[in-house]
Amino acid sequence: MRQQKPIRSEMGWSTRDKIGVRGLDLVSDLIGKVSLGDVAWLEIMGTLPTPDQSVLFNAMMVTMVEHGMTPNAIAARMTYLGAPESLNSAVAAGLCGLGTVFAGTAEGAARLLQEALRDAGPDPDLRRIATRIVADFRARKAQIPGLGHPVHKPIDPRTPRLFGLAREQGHFGSHCGLMELVADEAERASGKVLPVNATGAIGAIASELGIDWRLCRGIAVMGRAIGLVGHIAEEIRNPVAREIWDRVDEEASEDVRPK
Amino acid sequence: MRQQKPIRSEMGWSTRDKIGVRGLDLVSDLIGKVSLGDVAWLEIMGTLPTPDQSVLFNAMMVTMVEHGMTPNAIAARMTYLGAPESLNSAVAAGLCGLGTVFAGTAEGAARLLQEALRDAGPDPDLRRIATRIVADFRARKAQIPGLGHPVHKPIDPRTPRLFGLAREQGHFGSHCGLMELVADEAERASGKVLPVNATGAIGAIASELGIDWRLCRGIAVMGRAIGLVGHIAEEIRNPVAREIWDRVDEEASEDVRPK
Amino acid sequence: MRQQKPIRSEMGWSTRDKIGVRGLDLVSDLIGKVSLGDVAWLEIMGTLPTPDQSVLFNAMMVTMVEHGMTPNAIAARMTYLGAPESLNSAVAAGLCGLGTVFAGTAEGAARLLQEALRDAGPDPDLRRIATRIVADFRARKAQIPGLGHPVHKPIDPRTPRLFGLAREQGHFGSHCGLMELVADEAERASGKVLPVNATGAIGAIASELGIDWRLCRGIAVMGRAIGLVGHIAEEIRNPVAREIWDRVDEEASEDVRPK
Amino acid sequence: MRQQKPIRSEMGWSTRDKIGVRGLDLVSDLIGKVSLGDVAWLEIMGTLPTPDQSVLFNAMMVTMVEHGMTPNAIAARMTYLGAPESLNSAVAAGLCGLGTVFAGTAEGAARLLQEALRDAGPDPDLRRIATRIVADFRARKAQIPGLGHPVHKPIDPRTPRLFGLAREQGHFGSHCGLMELVADEAERASGKVLPVNATGAIGAIASELGIDWRLCRGIAVMGRAIGLVGHIAEEIRNPVAREIWDRVDEEASEDVRPK
Repeated sequence: MRQQKPIRSEMGWSTRDKIGVRGLDLVSDLIGKVSLGDVAWLEIMGTLPTPDQSVLFNAMMVTMVEHGMTPNAIAARMTYLGAPESLNSAVAAGLCGLGTVFAGTAEGAARLLQEALRDAGPDPDLRRIATRIVADFRARKAQIPGLGHPVHKPIDPRTPRLFGLAREQGHFGSHCGLMELVADEAERASGKVLPVNATGAIGAIASELGIDWRLCRGIAVMGRAIGLVGHIAEEIRNPVAREIWDRVDEEASEDVRPK
Repeated sequence: MRQQKPIRSEMGWSTRDKIGVRGLDLVSDLIGKVSLGDVAWLEIMGTLPTPDQSVLFNAMMVTMVEHGMTPNAIAARMTYLGAPESLNSAVAAGLCGLGTVFAGTAEGAARLLQEALRDAGPDPDLRRIATRIVADFRARKAQIPGLGHPVHKPIDPRTPRLFGLAREQGHFGSHCGLMELVADEAERASGKVLPVNATGAIGAIASELGIDWRLCRGIAVMGRAIGLVGHIAEEIRNPVAREIWDRVDEEASEDVRPK
Repeated sequence: MRQQKPIRSEMGWSTRDKIGVRGLDLVSDLIGKVSLGDVAWLEIMGTLPTPDQSVLFNAMMVTMVEHGMTPNAIAARMTYLGAPESLNSAVAAGLCGLGTVFAGTAEGAARLLQEALRDAGPDPDLRRIATRIVADFRARKAQIPGLGHPVHKPIDPRTPRLFGLAREQGHFGSHCGLMELVADEAERASGKVLPVNATGAIGAIASELGIDWRLCRGIAVMGRAIGLVGHIAEEIRNPVAREIWDRVDEEASEDVRPK
Repeated sequence: MRQQKPIRSEMGWSTRDKIGVRGLDLVSDLIGKVSLGDVAWLEIMGTLPTPDQSVLFNAMMVTMVEHGMTPNAIAARMTYLGAPESLNSAVAAGLCGLGTVFAGTAEGAARLLQEALRDAGPDPDLRRIATRIVADFRARKAQIPGLGHPVHKPIDPRTPRLFGLAREQGHFGSHCGLMELVADEAERASGKVLPVNATGAIGAIASELGIDWRLCRGIAVMGRAIGLVGHIAEEIRNPVAREIWDRVDEEASEDVRPK
């Protein structure tokens, strides 16, 4: 007979007249008093954020909200076209595409930094660590997460802003420093322009704030969920999904469809 | 030959060195300056919120973030157990369940109120409209969205707080008033305790703020996406999904499985 | 203290050396002996199908597999572009759009028929029932599910084939007959061409086979899940998602993006 | 100005009176003539299967349909509880969890085998290749996909059946042979019981049939989509989702919820 383990959660509870959220009272402590972004920090970290944490955490999520007609925005709109009764499923469809190619890269960058600095001691030689990371990725012919961008060249404009905020708020530490050195070494070794991109900066700053790399994709998820609701709002006002469908369908089968 | 229509979006754009979000500059106008909840308003409504809009919009989303071990939280944790490489898909799985039974009811309440008041003129007789709505639902044996709660009885503690904020911020208008009268008439007609619940209050306040009823489910989606990331964070710290699975599996087939 | 209820399932179980599926042995009864479509019937109905049930059930699912570059196929491909490590999530994203507009209509048609015939007695007057249904939908200005098609006019070519098979296999009963009469009455009342479409035929035949209307969307889901894997297979061989994205993005923001 | 590329698909097309599916006519060639599993092969491989291909392909998909109250079945039921109007989204939620931990492992096994044999020449030394693979995974402390099972010990009963069918149908080639040798070497090197499991056998047989490893997760997806519809069918007949939710919720917050 298997020994049962307890099932426990500290996220929230409710009784007839009260709702608890991470040890606070939803009604008296949160509604009308704490902004959405700060409640997101509470959910993940268990306390309300300090002002500096709040600035950086909101900044990272805001960065990920909107990037125009991305593949996930198109997927959400296509889904809404078939199931307008389920806005939630349209957003879900969009989130399914936040994988390794686009937004998931913050996770990879944070993992890289957190693993490199975990056992590095109090005063690590960041340049040496960066050199070793770049050599290691090049040996495996793998792409370093958090570097380079197909459109934003030679720099990703979000990065200096995010790193500037991290400095202002006193959170530009060894993870951010290492991320910059990794970019520097990668450019030197490859001869290519490989600046830290927005997800690299987010992975680094999230690491400074103590966020587990396995949660860094969540920063993109929370931001983009909001952005996808925005796209559905526009799709309601000014629908384009059917036109996209019609054009794709007409062209895709024009060679094989009988006239 | 089909006439093509233009495909247009004003959500966002990017060039080599700039990213636009609803007419603002992401880097100089939003990152580090505007909180996540206020960017959500910008995404949906096209302008930054006024302070009163910000208070109410954040309050509504915050209300929906966390409600403990709900079915959608369990679904997200089960999904993460099988696909820990795809936190985004775990959140997506959770959002798929935000349908008509739970969070989707804000949509129904807002629709009811917006349709009732659309052609009601400048000084509508709200009591008469409420009576007609309740009679209509009773005739169809349909449940009025936004009323009653299985746990929060006799009142849903979130409702007085939300309506109190609406009053404070100058947005308790005819939609909120009508929602309260519908509850009053429904209780009178049915003899049951049917207070306005949180999604009813949210549907009403969203209507006051000019949010289309078709987007009201999005308020829950944005809040709960954040809550689901919180549940995954706890699942990483203190996993329970496998224990839930084991218990369900053992019990479910104990009659049919050979010993 | 709440009284616990038992949690029971007869779907399947496993021990060290055996796996049961709906009372049969997976290894000795199913693998290599029963085709996928027949196992689908077993899963839903609890027994293996008779030959006539097999023909019709496979025919209905096969009808729903492939319809070219539909919105859900585009959504799946967009999702795969961002998350090629999660083919499962790409299919999931596509399924999210099988709502009320497209494939979900089989559910509506089956519901209509099953509810109309539930209490109709042994020899119902189908013409009278059809007239009443059409009048009822017209009074509510609602669209009758299962009728008409934007492309397949004046008839949907799948319908005569499906209804022909139902006749051949001895399952063209009152549900199929009523569906045809509803179309006939709807055309007469509206003056429009409103033939029974594929989802109408599927809703009717599924009803003949004793499938609950709440499961009829599942016929489309099972078929289309297969079709979406097919689209991902083609996307791997001959990718088009990025080109669709690029074109949509370029055109969508061409008015608002600075040159 | 970017040069546009053509968007082409050979999956399907429709005109007013015809629907084409991979070069065949849906109505005259497929509906009522070809079973669901064989249409799945057509979708992915572009031709109807030969009898041996049909047996093996159906066998692999059938293997994945049902495994009792798995995490993805629980996720689908939880989703249906909140959104009974969207059976499709409940199945989608379940599919989101078919990741690297469970069903996704067929993909890993197939990749391993296909990459190992791609450049191995006409008469490869399979034992030597197996030894090298095992040594390589052990050096990286990585788990070899397709080996071992927590419940099915010392052998997974599905594997001898699947490999037996492969032999019978003349498709037990070097991929299957290599898979068995990898298991043999892994057991020798680790001293553990590590038999080829069902996903390992599926990965190997799929490779024999010429299915790209990137599609092997699709075999599980197609099978399990059907199994999840089966679970929803049972949830409608005999609901358990609410009881699971209630129990989890009660226990999870019993320490933190005020009495």
